Amino acid sequence: MVMAVTTIIIVSCNQPATNKKADAEILQASTIFPQGDKIVSNNFTGTAWLNLLVNEDTTYNTVIGNVTFEPGARTNWHYHRGGQILLITKGRGLYQEKGKPIETIQKGDIIKCPPNVIHWHGATPTDTLVHIAISINTDKGSVVWLEKVSD
Amino acid sequence: MVMAVTTIIIVSCNQPATNKKADAEILQASTIFPQGDKIVSNNFTGTAWLNLLVNEDTTYNTVIGNVTFEPGARTNWHYHRGGQILLITKGRGLYQEKGKPIETIQKGDIIKCPPNVIHWHGATPTDTLVHIAISINTDKGSVVWLEKVSD
Repeated sequence: MVMAVTTIIIVSCNQPATNKKADAEILQASTIFPQGDKIVSNNFTGTAWLNLLVNEDTTYNTVIGNVTFEPGARTNWHYHRGGQILLITKGRGLYQEKGKPIETIQKGDIIKCPPNVIHWHGATPTDTLVHIAISINTDKGSVVWLEKVSD
Repeated sequence: MVMAVTTIIIVSCNQPATNKKADAEILQASTIFPQGDKIVSNNFTGTAWLNLLVNEDTTYNTVIGNVTFEPGARTNWHYHRGGQILLITKGRGLYQEKGKPIETIQKGDIIKCPPNVIHWHGATPTDTLVHIAISINTDKGSVVWLEKVSD
């Protein structure tokens, strides 16, 4: 048996057109979900944006939001009765549970915020942070907001 | 047996450094979460990949996975006791509930699979589909797998 498999791929790119396409793809890729509306709330410091992907109801018992923190923006201290999971989709940020050191979090990380554990999260002073926040077990009650995080 | 496998890839890009950076950013942006392991299961048709982001437990009551379907790949018919939410992060695919027409789904879409409703999802015949699958209320029981979806 003689078997010959030949694959030749030639890519030649002398093209401004493709580069414009590339720019468009970057923009699209970085915005799977639009950033939504600016958050106007005393429970946040700095500029943050919320795109509410899934509203609370009694069927799914979850609230899912895409949250964008501009550099320096962060939540107040708070806790979730049923817990929350953060899927970090872009940038770098900070996460801290009460009484523990601040942790750096970044794109690709999965953060579990345990039920009734006081914590805060947000962007670093120099980076933007985008995460999908999944609050589960919302039949146990909603988020409880506390005081601002000091600088 | 004589076997000759030759792969020649020629990439000629006369592009400025920024475009190379752009290409790298596209690649990075399209892989927030690695595709994980190839799914070896009779509950799937075609080639699909799973990166299990959150394992089931009694604290969070959720299972979260990043699933990549290659073109033509799909799940069997199945249902979730506690429901499931799909966040489509890349490509185009198909979703169908039993007795209803097939729907096209794509990047940016949010699909709610209600508890105990039989359905299937997967890629179109020509596109890849990537979604984050969030199974909630897993204390009500896990996924129930049924028969293959016909072509």
